[in-house]
Amino acid sequence: MPSEAPPRPRGRPRAGINRLVFDATLDTVEEVGYAHATVDRIAARAGIAKTTIYRRWPTKGTLIVDCLIDAIGPAPFEGADRREKLASAIRWAADKLGEPGVGDAFAGVFSDGVSDPELRLVLSSRLQEPYRLAVQTALDQPEREALLFIDIVVGTLLHRMGMTGRPMVEEDVEALIELVTSYFH
Amino acid sequence: MPSEAPPRPRGRPRAGINRLVFDATLDTVEEVGYAHATVDRIAARAGIAKTTIYRRWPTKGTLIVDCLIDAIGPAPFEGADRREKLASAIRWAADKLGEPGVGDAFAGVFSDGVSDPELRLVLSSRLQEPYRLAVQTALDQPEREALLFIDIVVGTLLHRMGMTGRPMVEEDVEALIELVTSYFH
Repeated sequence: MPSEAPPRPRGRPRAGINRLVFDATLDTVEEVGYAHATVDRIAARAGIAKTTIYRRWPTKGTLIVDCLIDAIGPAPFEGADRREKLASAIRWAADKLGEPGVGDAFAGVFSDGVSDPELRLVLSSRLQEPYRLAVQTALDQPEREALLFIDIVVGTLLHRMGMTGRPMVEEDVEALIELVTSYFH
Repeated sequence: MPSEAPPRPRGRPRAGINRLVFDATLDTVEEVGYAHATVDRIAARAGIAKTTIYRRWPTKGTLIVDCLIDAIGPAPFEGADRREKLASAIRWAADKLGEPGVGDAFAGVFSDGVSDPELRLVLSSRLQEPYRLAVQTALDQPEREALLFIDIVVGTLLHRMGMTGRPMVEEDVEALIELVTSYFH
């Protein structure tokens, strides 16, 4: 036996597991919907043990939140002035929520949050907080305005998806941009 | 035995059953959250057989939609001009979604709709359509604008509830009114 062979790592590296689980999560949500996307099903799809998931994410809600943070990533605020920056962020949000499984996972975890205070805390502190800070900087307005901006943009996009099953079309995204940037100018 | 006693009615009148079931639905949703408010639990709370519910509402989604239509009722558009009418409807929507169980039931059925085309059809045709028509008349603008108005108002109010667990405070409702009425003037 060649002694120079490096020892086989025990288990997979953390990032590899996260990738597997996050991909399996969005695929499962897209296929069977949020309510039926149980940790059992997600684990089966990822090809790993359910306990591996529960070791990292104690609840389905925390898994979905981390999966969304991974899928959505940081918001861009690009452009020469505040209006352009806000417009680029709104277009980006519309695109992201339209990605397979993302809008569904978002609407689902969000609706669970209405009756789950712990999950709400995770949602607002882990998922929303970084965007709130970025919006506040881009708007150059107090926290209250930044939170209202997020409610309006994300709430409107999610409501449209819930009613039509499809992301908002570009023409309506532009109307939303016009409406929001006229107010937060 | 007195022969003049009227025959005992078989079963309860339809309206009586609906009332029982709708009240039990909102109470159950408020207590255990939308996801855990099963038809089993709702039937137990209403003190009726599960089959009685399924005879009228084939799915939990259709039950929740009828319950919401009953709880929310027609939208008022009161005031001297379009701005006042829209403002009164937005204030009313904020109050209604803040009633116990209503925001939670709404957010839940809505999130199920993202991955359930049949439920989406029920949601948009039975729940949203009457409001869409009323908004369209009040706005005196095409269908597209009326749908955007509903997405913005309802989406924003639900997003706030999902993040905070509480209805939007009056100060923010007034900001939302200002933003929406400036656009749809």
